Amino acid sequence: MSKEITNRAADYAQWYNDLVLKGQLADYSAVRGCMVIKPYGFALWEKMRDTLDQMFKDTGHENAYFPLFIPKSFLSREAAHVEGFAKECAVVTHYRLKNDPDGNGIIVDPEARLEEELIVRPTSETIIWNTYKTWIQSYRDLPLLINQWANVVRWEMRTRLFLRTTEFLWQEGHTAHANAEEAIAETLQMLDIYADFAENYMALPVIKGVKTASERFAGAVDTYCIEALMQDGKALQAGTSHFLGQNFAKAFDVKFSDKENKLDYVWATSWGVSTRLVGALVMAHSDDDGLILPPKIAPVQVVIIPIYKGSEQKEILDAKGKELTERLKKAGIRVKFDSNDNNRPGWKFAQYELKGVPVRIAMGLRDLENQTVEVARRDTKEKTSLPLEGLPERIEQLLLDIQQQMYQKALDYRQLHITAADHWDEFVRLLDEKGGFIAAHWDGTAETEEVIKDKTKATIRCIPLNNPQEDGVCILSGKPSRERVLFARAY
Amino acid sequence: MSKEITNRAADYAQWYNDLVLKGQLADYSAVRGCMVIKPYGFALWEKMRDTLDQMFKDTGHENAYFPLFIPKSFLSREAAHVEGFAKECAVVTHYRLKNDPDGNGIIVDPEARLEEELIVRPTSETIIWNTYKTWIQSYRDLPLLINQWANVVRWEMRTRLFLRTTEFLWQEGHTAHANAEEAIAETLQMLDIYADFAENYMALPVIKGVKTASERFAGAVDTYCIEALMQDGKALQAGTSHFLGQNFAKAFDVKFSDKENKLDYVWATSWGVSTRLVGALVMAHSDDDGLILPPKIAPVQVVIIPIYKGSEQKEILDAKGKELTERLKKAGIRVKFDSNDNNRPGWKFAQYELKGVPVRIAMGLRDLENQTVEVARRDTKEKTSLPLEGLPERIEQLLLDIQQQMYQKALDYRQLHITAADHWDEFVRLLDEKGGFIAAHWDGTAETEEVIKDKTKATIRCIPLNNPQEDGVCILSGKPSRERVLFARAY
Repeated sequence: MSKEITNRAADYAQWYNDLVLKGQLADYSAVRGCMVIKPYGFALWEKMRDTLDQMFKDTGHENAYFPLFIPKSFLSREAAHVEGFAKECAVVTHYRLKNDPDGNGIIVDPEARLEEELIVRPTSETIIWNTYKTWIQSYRDLPLLINQWANVVRWEMRTRLFLRTTEFLWQEGHTAHANAEEAIAETLQMLDIYADFAENYMALPVIKGVKTASERFAGAVDTYCIEALMQDGKALQAGTSHFLGQNFAKAFDVKFSDKENKLDYVWATSWGVSTRLVGALVMAHSDDDGLILPPKIAPVQVVIIPIYKGSEQKEILDAKGKELTERLKKAGIRVKFDSNDNNRPGWKFAQYELKGVPVRIAMGLRDLENQTVEVARRDTKEKTSLPLEGLPERIEQLLLDIQQQMYQKALDYRQLHITAADHWDEFVRLLDEKGGFIAAHWDGTAETEEVIKDKTKATIRCIPLNNPQEDGVCILSGKPSRERVLFARAY
Repeated sequence: MSKEITNRAADYAQWYNDLVLKGQLADYSAVRGCMVIKPYGFALWEKMRDTLDQMFKDTGHENAYFPLFIPKSFLSREAAHVEGFAKECAVVTHYRLKNDPDGNGIIVDPEARLEEELIVRPTSETIIWNTYKTWIQSYRDLPLLINQWANVVRWEMRTRLFLRTTEFLWQEGHTAHANAEEAIAETLQMLDIYADFAENYMALPVIKGVKTASERFAGAVDTYCIEALMQDGKALQAGTSHFLGQNFAKAFDVKFSDKENKLDYVWATSWGVSTRLVGALVMAHSDDDGLILPPKIAPVQVVIIPIYKGSEQKEILDAKGKELTERLKKAGIRVKFDSNDNNRPGWKFAQYELKGVPVRIAMGLRDLENQTVEVARRDTKEKTSLPLEGLPERIEQLLLDIQQQMYQKALDYRQLHITAADHWDEFVRLLDEKGGFIAAHWDGTAETEEVIKDKTKATIRCIPLNNPQEDGVCILSGKPSRERVLFARAY
């Protein structure tokens, strides 16, 4: 594999594609808009998935699995939902193929037409709330705290590896509660879990906020989100948590009897993150030499590369390398010893740089004589010579340091890229020249939001939680406003 | 929840459905032939999945993810494959819905017709081998050892919860090798892993064998399988491992250059097990009071139930119960303390019996005075009083004993139900009256196999590995035969 990664400054979009493809995360597929997640990319997603899954379970959620298909009529049941989701979907109309009587392979059997078409789930609120109707009768059945890991399909016109694909993998939590307060608390709890995961595992600083009405999930009363910033100054929505009120309970007639035996509709939340997070991770940290992965979710945290000439040296280094590998493994470090004889050390160095392995250990005979190894960090490229004695403890500390410093670096960048704008010209100039989040006053109307989007391609990413209140005038309309909101161009 | 489980002897099929539904494993859904896997059923599947996943990784396999959709034309590429799989599939023909101009909800947009229809994967050989074409150039790229956990869809006419559903969850391994020997070794290695998992985790004895040509996977050179026996005397195919020869490599033009720079087609295997295993588990071990789960994969291994009157006693027992829970958790036991005040102990006893929790610990004040608890096994219903001191160690041993005895019981039943038959009348009588596997001579022709199937509904489950060679005559045709094969009626 050759590196040949496009320079970030030259072509950011191509740089991103190069990283994903050459970093062995994913590949294009024969199906329009769908990607293949390669083993290295899937191992990364597995680390993310398993970490989140444990966080969900620690807060009382259980996993379940609901059908891939949704009867078409279900989508129409919740009025706002159908507007937002029903349109660009994969539609199953037939259930059988047959041999072409003309001998040209196989054709769809026209006699096997479904009475009602099935939609490949774009999200599962409808099929799940149709099921909850039979599961919930009494307050004793609440709260119902369920999560599903699944594939979903949204027929996107323009797709990008991980960031926007026709099929993607995600988790969707769907919970049911006896009152609004509990449901809102759940919505915010899951938002906190997402922020905790993004910041402490992905090393990705995020802003927690609430969406404007126009950007809300179709069917939600409120949509909360975490917003991250990429290195090109564009924002990326990294997770959403919705307070659904009683909308889906009403659409699917899900009522419960409370302690006083009074019937009421159930209150709902839903929340999700997807393989899009892999794209965010790539764009937030990587450089022109390849991926830079945070140690906590890197599939391989440390790679050991022996430097030798001839089979005699190789034998000595193989033995030492295996010994060190075992010592690091015992300390709970995910380590790979690459003693493959087909490739030269320089090629391996470039290869693991490209794949973003946080720490590289190189060892040659001279190092061993001195009882040391050469340790290189992927993020800063710093190299140091460290004694073999006590190495696992030092590497453990180094991984923690890298994790912390990657976060700090991304946070510093983000903080430098939240800029206040008070005039329209300034607003436009900042978007074009600096990027990032622009904190500006807005008059609170969907019309103004729409005009700003049309003029600048910037959207309101969120109204931050605990947003400071401040009198001002709308950047576009000049009408009065009581708080700034965060605008950005976004993925 | 009431127990009301149909008696096995009265109606085996209904007994099975009762267990799945009332044992909270799964539920019917609004989509024909698709089921909802409930949290308890999914937790069981997760234990099975995670155990298998580790076994795959320990033998060098990596996970990846390929698209849900397969272009229709791909299915025609491998001739035998299309015959076996292309027929009963979910077909996506459109990618958009729109509002009905007549105001009746939403309709499929006739203008959004796909140029080429997409099939929801019934299995992924075609899309994966189309991808491998770009991944494999040289012997250095081999072996390629990849597994995928995914949902697949086969449009079944008659469905049964877990055993045969339109959508199901499974894993499918797809490996590529430089020669036939390696590919065959891989096929057999995975068969061994499946047998190991079935016997040592599911407590389910299986027979390893090879399928006859008629029962082979569509596109395989050889299909190996593990066959289990259910309590009604019917067999169940619990996993398959296929040696695919060069069939898919030729269909998708996947060649590699060997060490001598000679081009050859790649050799392939594929292997899979599915959520069907959950059905096998239920049918192999359970009784008229509910599920009986083997400790190694039971989501909850031990339930602790306090027996008390009044809040004063409850308080004491809650404290003691939590203490014991922590002690058991520390020993690595999956334990649940059910101190819920809404339900009486008798109800809880029945409930956990129904759900198949291997061990129940009941504790009342008198027990505590004696420093003992009452320990009941789900499988044998034996109850004993055990001292609190050293309890975690005793429970650990008890769980091992239960696991072992469940396997032994199933093995004894299976051994009693392999019967040799030398005459046709005997063969038919055994099938009708005793069930199980019938070891009989067969002339090796597909015609005879077909006639036997038509007459008796029995199929050749497998030709066991290392089958003893013995001269005889075919049970139906009287033609010469050199070995017995195993017939059975099957799920």
